[in-house]
Amino acid sequence: MQFTIQRNRLADSVNHVMRAVSSRTTIPILTGIKIVATEDGITFTGSDSDISIESYIPVEENGDKLIDMVQPGGIVLNARFFGDIVRKLPKDTVEMKVEDSRQVLIRSGKAEFYLNGLDHKEYPLLPQVSDETVFSMPGNLLKTLIRQTVFAVSTSEIRPILTGVNWHIENGSLTCVATDSHRLAMKTSPVDLPENESYQTVIPGKSLTELSKILDDNDQPVNIFITDNQVLFKTKNIHFYSRRLEGNYPDTSRLIPAEYKTNIVLEGKLFNDAIDRASLLAREERNNVVKLTSLEGNMIEISSNTPEIGHVSEQIPIHSLEGEALNISFSAKYMMEALRAVEGNEITVSFTGAMRPFIIKSVEDPTILQLILPVRTA
Amino acid sequence: MQFTIQRNRLADSVNHVMRAVSSRTTIPILTGIKIVATEDGITFTGSDSDISIESYIPVEENGDKLIDMVQPGGIVLNARFFGDIVRKLPKDTVEMKVEDSRQVLIRSGKAEFYLNGLDHKEYPLLPQVSDETVFSMPGNLLKTLIRQTVFAVSTSEIRPILTGVNWHIENGSLTCVATDSHRLAMKTSPVDLPENESYQTVIPGKSLTELSKILDDNDQPVNIFITDNQVLFKTKNIHFYSRRLEGNYPDTSRLIPAEYKTNIVLEGKLFNDAIDRASLLAREERNNVVKLTSLEGNMIEISSNTPEIGHVSEQIPIHSLEGEALNISFSAKYMMEALRAVEGNEITVSFTGAMRPFIIKSVEDPTILQLILPVRTA
Repeated sequence: MQFTIQRNRLADSVNHVMRAVSSRTTIPILTGIKIVATEDGITFTGSDSDISIESYIPVEENGDKLIDMVQPGGIVLNARFFGDIVRKLPKDTVEMKVEDSRQVLIRSGKAEFYLNGLDHKEYPLLPQVSDETVFSMPGNLLKTLIRQTVFAVSTSEIRPILTGVNWHIENGSLTCVATDSHRLAMKTSPVDLPENESYQTVIPGKSLTELSKILDDNDQPVNIFITDNQVLFKTKNIHFYSRRLEGNYPDTSRLIPAEYKTNIVLEGKLFNDAIDRASLLAREERNNVVKLTSLEGNMIEISSNTPEIGHVSEQIPIHSLEGEALNISFSAKYMMEALRAVEGNEITVSFTGAMRPFIIKSVEDPTILQLILPVRTA
Repeated sequence: MQFTIQRNRLADSVNHVMRAVSSRTTIPILTGIKIVATEDGITFTGSDSDISIESYIPVEENGDKLIDMVQPGGIVLNARFFGDIVRKLPKDTVEMKVEDSRQVLIRSGKAEFYLNGLDHKEYPLLPQVSDETVFSMPGNLLKTLIRQTVFAVSTSEIRPILTGVNWHIENGSLTCVATDSHRLAMKTSPVDLPENESYQTVIPGKSLTELSKILDDNDQPVNIFITDNQVLFKTKNIHFYSRRLEGNYPDTSRLIPAEYKTNIVLEGKLFNDAIDRASLLAREERNNVVKLTSLEGNMIEISSNTPEIGHVSEQIPIHSLEGEALNISFSAKYMMEALRAVEGNEITVSFTGAMRPFIIKSVEDPTILQLILPVRTA
């Protein structure tokens, strides 16, 4: 293997595939990045067996020569050292060459590194995914879907299925649901699939978070393939594989109340900032609980009380209140995360009683719903 | 105590004095900030008994009214909660009022906090420092003195005196020295004192680091007072007290070689970057050792070798070499920290043998000297 490559492109690819490399793997070769060079381009691969990422650099792109390929071949290089080296190389181009006994020369300007490599044929094969596109969506929409749901997955391994986001496609619509059993985030989006096709899969939250970091924030399409135990996200030069979580995702549809006793409409940012302040004195508590009380004249009060520290209250105006008076306590953390996901200027919060789940929606965007279970207080 | 104050000024003062507050103190009241309001202004105090910081806000400054003082008085408030609250208040002004049983109302807009306070009379008294100015220097010069020396203090408590920087004033000149016994940093600066006055004190590195973060980067004077066991740095509105370290600082003057066998002159940034790259493969080692070898034709080679990972070498041009050929190994970390402190474009490195300390100086700035002990290698 021998080639000269643009350093920036090499650095991007190495940064992308490193997201899948874990230093805690029990399979030594997986601490490395696999590099395979052909006449057409170079593929970089990183994997921790949950996530695998391939990044491809073509020899030529849009008329620009990115690689000068002297000799195809392959090698596996330690991800951490290789990544550090690439980041600090002095010049804009890099020469790489596999020498005897898998020593790899990395040269840029007058700096010459020799890294010990491993045989790329010993690197585990990635899952085979058939080439039938399931569906496609713009990268920025996919990032939004992830951002608005993934924060609500469970961080506990007691019910592993809840550490993933449930993706369900039916009637030409994708519904993403995440819940840790104290709150739930749901987002729907139309997809370009025939109405009679349906799919269901649970994707680990960690995979989606990493995917989201790699995707560019533009409308370039991402093709999504679902197989028996893998999901593959394909962009022009990146293949992102995630394993699927096994097991049945709970039926969450019944959690969402059908009717409400109280509806309030208010400005999201004002609400968020008041909760943020009220939570300052409550954060020592595990659940960081604040209280919402309705007042006369389209006002509510947000308050919290921790006797050994102090108490706080703030009145904020709301746009409207319909139905019964309110007095409810909930986790400030959950509410602020829900408000960040909903992101509308004007939001609706709908309650069915002090101990029943309530939901938060954007007045402007009906595709996103957040649900929170209240907290019982004295 | 009752007043209304500009939030930004309050936030600045709280941030400054919080630098002295430790959550790990064994004296509960020291987790708080003392607030004392008089007709003229308000003094905030934080202390961990090693460092004490006072920040003062006058009622009026340059014709601007900063405080509306209703009732003088005092209180101690938990530093962490108070700091968080001040940072997140909604409006530009804040009202504070001590109510019954030391509950303190903090109100901004519609947000009302009540924090439990403690009696300010129980707060430990700060050391008394006499008012005779020892000397004064511009704040930005003081910051430079600190930055160029403090990184070289010892982090080990085996010889506590080495965790401080030795300040020695003699013949109208201040010399600051820090050493961890593997390397040494020295900076000199003229001071406005009579030639026959001399002072010597060792100031904890941690104190100087915190002081440096508080000082503005301008030439406003800082007055420095040295007493038996304290040093006080005074700016217009801030008093920064540090305890002095007890014990005799070692005589470091003999460490600095009087003559050299090899002198090289080269560009600091080029040198630093090559060492940074060479250290990438050496960082697993405790000392992060790289090797410098002189070559023919005004070139040197920086290299390192870790057999299980790989090796690296880079040749860089130098401006000149006088004296014997070189082959010496040293800590890349120490060298990079020394080069960052010297900060000159053109630097001189002077050697007296592979196992003798060598020094790094700036060609442009003779007031700063760095010394490093080489490492013995196979």
